[in-house]
Amino acid sequence: MTTAWSERFARRTHGMQSSAIREILKVTQQPDVISFAGGLPAPELFPVAEVQAACARVLQERGRQALQYTITEGYPPLRQYIVEKMARYGIPADPDNVLITSGSQQALDLIGKVLVDEGDPVVVEAPTYLGALQAWQPYGPRFIPVPIDNDGMRVDLLEPILKRHRPKLMYALPNFQNPAGTTLSRERRERLVHLASDYGVPLIEDDPYGELRYEGEHLPPLIALDCQKLVAEGKAGSDGLLRGDVIYLSTFSKTLAPGLRLGWIIAPVEVVQKLVQAKQGADLHTSTFAQMVACEVVRGNFLENHVRRIRAFYRQRRDAMLAALEQYCPPGVTWTEPQGGLFLWVRLPEGLDAEVVLRDALAQKVAFVPGRSFYADGSGYNTMRLNFSNAEPDRIVEGVRRLARAIERHLEPVHVAR
Amino acid sequence: MTTAWSERFARRTHGMQSSAIREILKVTQQPDVISFAGGLPAPELFPVAEVQAACARVLQERGRQALQYTITEGYPPLRQYIVEKMARYGIPADPDNVLITSGSQQALDLIGKVLVDEGDPVVVEAPTYLGALQAWQPYGPRFIPVPIDNDGMRVDLLEPILKRHRPKLMYALPNFQNPAGTTLSRERRERLVHLASDYGVPLIEDDPYGELRYEGEHLPPLIALDCQKLVAEGKAGSDGLLRGDVIYLSTFSKTLAPGLRLGWIIAPVEVVQKLVQAKQGADLHTSTFAQMVACEVVRGNFLENHVRRIRAFYRQRRDAMLAALEQYCPPGVTWTEPQGGLFLWVRLPEGLDAEVVLRDALAQKVAFVPGRSFYADGSGYNTMRLNFSNAEPDRIVEGVRRLARAIERHLEPVHVAR
Repeated sequence: MTTAWSERFARRTHGMQSSAIREILKVTQQPDVISFAGGLPAPELFPVAEVQAACARVLQERGRQALQYTITEGYPPLRQYIVEKMARYGIPADPDNVLITSGSQQALDLIGKVLVDEGDPVVVEAPTYLGALQAWQPYGPRFIPVPIDNDGMRVDLLEPILKRHRPKLMYALPNFQNPAGTTLSRERRERLVHLASDYGVPLIEDDPYGELRYEGEHLPPLIALDCQKLVAEGKAGSDGLLRGDVIYLSTFSKTLAPGLRLGWIIAPVEVVQKLVQAKQGADLHTSTFAQMVACEVVRGNFLENHVRRIRAFYRQRRDAMLAALEQYCPPGVTWTEPQGGLFLWVRLPEGLDAEVVLRDALAQKVAFVPGRSFYADGSGYNTMRLNFSNAEPDRIVEGVRRLARAIERHLEPVHVAR
Repeated sequence: MTTAWSERFARRTHGMQSSAIREILKVTQQPDVISFAGGLPAPELFPVAEVQAACARVLQERGRQALQYTITEGYPPLRQYIVEKMARYGIPADPDNVLITSGSQQALDLIGKVLVDEGDPVVVEAPTYLGALQAWQPYGPRFIPVPIDNDGMRVDLLEPILKRHRPKLMYALPNFQNPAGTTLSRERRERLVHLASDYGVPLIEDDPYGELRYEGEHLPPLIALDCQKLVAEGKAGSDGLLRGDVIYLSTFSKTLAPGLRLGWIIAPVEVVQKLVQAKQGADLHTSTFAQMVACEVVRGNFLENHVRRIRAFYRQRRDAMLAALEQYCPPGVTWTEPQGGLFLWVRLPEGLDAEVVLRDALAQKVAFVPGRSFYADGSGYNTMRLNFSNAEPDRIVEGVRRLARAIERHLEPVHVAR
């Protein structure tokens, strides 16, 4: 008997598809393409020499440990480092609140596995991080998109949704959001944390870019506000342990190197314990070696100093892109002005489809990701995400010039009419 | 409103628990405990110097690539290496048939995610690898245990089960099975592959230990037999691509180092493509750096020569354990005599509970894992798994002596009566 494998796949796979980004990235492998499509850090910033020195030290001093299995929770000194790092951002974590993950993509998968039942309503921003939609889709949520504006998620629209749908969780990227580059305002942060607590809805705070702020004032993480609120209300507990409704995620991918695949989760102890059980089944633990090497590289103040360099570097690229958009884009095209991160968001005039523009742009050797992929409901046909971290400033200017031309061609009356 | 997190967890978490092994391992952290509990490779065999040289070369020559994101499928030269390695075992894979995973634990998770719907019957050996039960349990299978004997899975019992339950998949560890150390005979391999094909049931072949054979003749993997069968029947396809009903898993954890977390899946292209989509959501990709370092270490014939050393080393430990069991164990206690791998399996007289023996053994500073954890149905109360790879021969002898004493104490009439 011959059965097609496609007939054997589980129902949860039916919505799975390869990320549109990964498909576009294949085109952008050609060296003459100017790509705004990926979300890749600039490799010229990777601390290669420091990683090499760390590998040598780790293997010389603790080689057997580095190559052996370790505990699922993560390498204890790395968890301790993260505790201290988090404290600087007002997050009162204990090592038992920290789980090391294989990139923060795994954090999203584990959270979906542990919290999302089939049919559960899940509030997401519109647009939101594509990888979260991909991670959670197999667990069968019903996504409820909430629009964003220049100040991030429209928190003012949330309460009726919370009342009506009683979501299983809410998902927010407060800093320099992927894809839109927007930042949630201080007022909205306060309000969002109160709503999560008033309605008892877990809030997932995804913060891969928080350290990459190029201007403006640092805003407190949602989890820090939630902890402050519990203290103010006398509900913080006498053990001093982190509790509350927020689960915080971050990563070393944007500050150290994505190729190590290291992220972390900060959550109440009982959540970490459940996530640990899920992680045991998923990959036993994250690479011992990668954890020990990263821990060796980042300790002391290396990472803080390194991130200062990254900020100066990306800020220049962001500025180049903003200036080029200003110079070349036809009227009717608008974009966000991110205070940090890797991305900005372009909105085309109504009626113009970014996927049509993409075909033309690719012919001109420029790539970007059409915005539709970032909407749980497939809307956003006239939007696009531009990445500015992975090309040199003069290439950015040239790329934007070509892209603006491609847009312009489609704005001629015959195209607008379609 | 305060909601307990435990009330928020998804239904699929209700069966999740921390592995019994990991709990016992906490006790065995004490250096004076002789542990047969883990499944740890001997760290004195890790090729630390070679890994260090590989790190230096990779970072010097391709540091930026090694620290950057890569494709989900895995580092192409490593996939090519695996293709060549598999060919030596009669497995005709193409790079498109290979997916690199974060240990073969992740392979199990992805297979569960892609193939198992809630309520699907899944045939497993009894006992079987605990990590497979843990990986799949969240996807809601109904496990159907099939007993094993000294020749591995009782394939002669399968046909009525296939007829009655139409399982979604079958899971087998043909070589030196974890936990029991048994090996599926050549005849049963042939029969199992035919049954899978006759009933159109996917067969998951988990082979972490296949290269660690200490005596006897190498037996062909199920996937190789399946491919031969298709060729013989003229169903192999003119493109020469691997097809059929078997998905094969293996890992570098037992031959190179588990701390790198590197495994692989060999499967038909359409299965790999679906697994790639699932892996994108799960962790984007496995550590670029770990893949490139492993590739640098294993290439040429390093790994084959290294595995030869491992075999000689573990063989001695296995022999020490078998001799000590023979010398010290009271009558009525039986055990398997594995031809390879890391484990053997002890059966106590009926009525004697291995968990009761464990308490006593721990007091004597000896640890093992009671067999019950390895049974999907919680049976096997009078069995235990002993690992022989992680202790020196004289410690093994001393540990078995103490363990035999603990068993003996419980065989006294007063204990048997309980």
